[in-house]
Amino acid sequence: MKMKKFINSPESLTIETLEGLAAAYADKIKLASPKIVARANPKPENKVAVVAYGGSGHEPAISGFVGEGMLDISVAGDIFAAPNAVSLLEGLRLVKRDAGILLIVLNHAGDVMSGNMAMKMAEREGIKIKSVLVADDISAGLDSPKSERRGLAGCVPLIKVAGAAAESGKSLDEVASIAERFNSRISTLAVAMSGCTHPQNGLPITELPDDEMEIGMGQHGEAGGGRSGILTADETAKIMFGALSRASDLKGGDRIFLIINGVGATTHMELAIVFRAVVKLASEIGVKVDGGIIDELLTVQEMAGFQMIVCPVDGESLKLLKARSNAPYWTSLGE
Amino acid sequence: MKMKKFINSPESLTIETLEGLAAAYADKIKLASPKIVARANPKPENKVAVVAYGGSGHEPAISGFVGEGMLDISVAGDIFAAPNAVSLLEGLRLVKRDAGILLIVLNHAGDVMSGNMAMKMAEREGIKIKSVLVADDISAGLDSPKSERRGLAGCVPLIKVAGAAAESGKSLDEVASIAERFNSRISTLAVAMSGCTHPQNGLPITELPDDEMEIGMGQHGEAGGGRSGILTADETAKIMFGALSRASDLKGGDRIFLIINGVGATTHMELAIVFRAVVKLASEIGVKVDGGIIDELLTVQEMAGFQMIVCPVDGESLKLLKARSNAPYWTSLGE
Repeated sequence: MKMKKFINSPESLTIETLEGLAAAYADKIKLASPKIVARANPKPENKVAVVAYGGSGHEPAISGFVGEGMLDISVAGDIFAAPNAVSLLEGLRLVKRDAGILLIVLNHAGDVMSGNMAMKMAEREGIKIKSVLVADDISAGLDSPKSERRGLAGCVPLIKVAGAAAESGKSLDEVASIAERFNSRISTLAVAMSGCTHPQNGLPITELPDDEMEIGMGQHGEAGGGRSGILTADETAKIMFGALSRASDLKGGDRIFLIINGVGATTHMELAIVFRAVVKLASEIGVKVDGGIIDELLTVQEMAGFQMIVCPVDGESLKLLKARSNAPYWTSLGE
Repeated sequence: MKMKKFINSPESLTIETLEGLAAAYADKIKLASPKIVARANPKPENKVAVVAYGGSGHEPAISGFVGEGMLDISVAGDIFAAPNAVSLLEGLRLVKRDAGILLIVLNHAGDVMSGNMAMKMAEREGIKIKSVLVADDISAGLDSPKSERRGLAGCVPLIKVAGAAAESGKSLDEVASIAERFNSRISTLAVAMSGCTHPQNGLPITELPDDEMEIGMGQHGEAGGGRSGILTADETAKIMFGALSRASDLKGGDRIFLIINGVGATTHMELAIVFRAVVKLASEIGVKVDGGIIDELLTVQEMAGFQMIVCPVDGESLKLLKARSNAPYWTSLGE
């Protein structure tokens, strides 16, 4: 039986997706190659370039965040697969510059391997480059070392902070340092209500019984509660925010930027209801939610569920989060 | 069995959703009452107010489009139900002004009834008001009178055009005339791959067999093809764009703004693939896609499917579509 998805052929998914994206937002982005998205009008200014890469099938991430104030380019892999080192290197060459490149790496085996190889090759070519590793997923447990945590949608606010810092003319060392400081306290936890279908082979990705949900979705579902019966929005928020507030070491007086990221089929209605619940929970421990996003930023096909992302912020990072960007899928947060 | 949705109680869905929305975007919007969303910082200027209203459960529409350059306020009804005339009148009173109010009405029986009653009551109170009726859905057939067409997601670009015209200081007659001219050529067609669940009573809304999809989703599914086996993205786009190009009377040399609006579970990947297909089809008949949106603007819970919205544009409407807005869910299209 055919998959219930609006696609043409499994082989052309990534390329057709990026063609559509570039056509819709042609005044902002363009294809530099079939799997590399670049800014439509890169300024010749000598600013640090910010680059991210990763598997496709998670749209709008990552290519939807190419634009002024965010990424200079993105390099897409095939569905759920990191681009190889040679493809990534091709992208890095496109933005080679004296100011250097900050590479955003999500902590998944394939991404890390491609990133390390491409960086070595780039450095041999005289490309100045630093990287930041996103490992925000706390589902492996609060005590697990950062090396065991996966990179989830926390990469999106990180890209925003790094991109805005780069746009303001800071040096590579400064941009990397600002990004790392912000990155060090981001924590994310995911919850799933349903699985989804791999758009290339039609096979189900994770399956959940009709009466169960799972906090800590994916391969390390042991933390935060794991599988349970269907909880209310408030109950779900309480478990997840409890774990996240410990992971991000929140204390009274802290301010956070909160993202409730829908991963596919979960409605904006539900995401907003969860956002509201977290604002109340945060206020109970003296933490102020100082802005946020309710939207789909990084998805997992049509899976029902969301990722809750807690970003502790200070005046500097909040200013960078709210700085102007014209990336197609970044909610315009500023004035 | 409990619904697989992150909610608390069926009674509080709308209020909790709007509380979450207002909390996330507090620098842009606020609750003027539990079901009325207003701009956070309305300027005292004497501009035409633009107001929309409608049932909830379709987020981010309509309240996600309150903001500078779009709506002044939105009035929400309960799930899938228009607010009553008294609630709507309460909203109209909040934006009463010499410049007048433009009310955006979606063509559904409940919405039209509330709108007509509220406008009569408002006029008796000396409120200056005009309305525009959105009836973009062509699924009732190309020959059906506009009165039989429902209002779908075409309301969102219309709100953008009217809101930008109002923000630029035009009079009520001018704003209404610009909105009506843009509105007169918008056409929309929906397609569904799956049904969804009513979030209050847990009952399924439309059901589709595993091997069928339906173009012209909803109560008038007779046009454009109706039910069929699962088609590819390109085949689906061809049927839908064919009907829409006739409905919008497209000719070689025309320019359109194209929206592929996800209604719930359909991925951004698929929406982008469909967008790409339409760009090609348009080009074959000499029509240029001059920008667009691939996103979820007006949803139908977790239904899989999308609405294709064709907006013929000229220099004026394109400028209004691309004018600045800070509404939380309007993609920042401009520079």
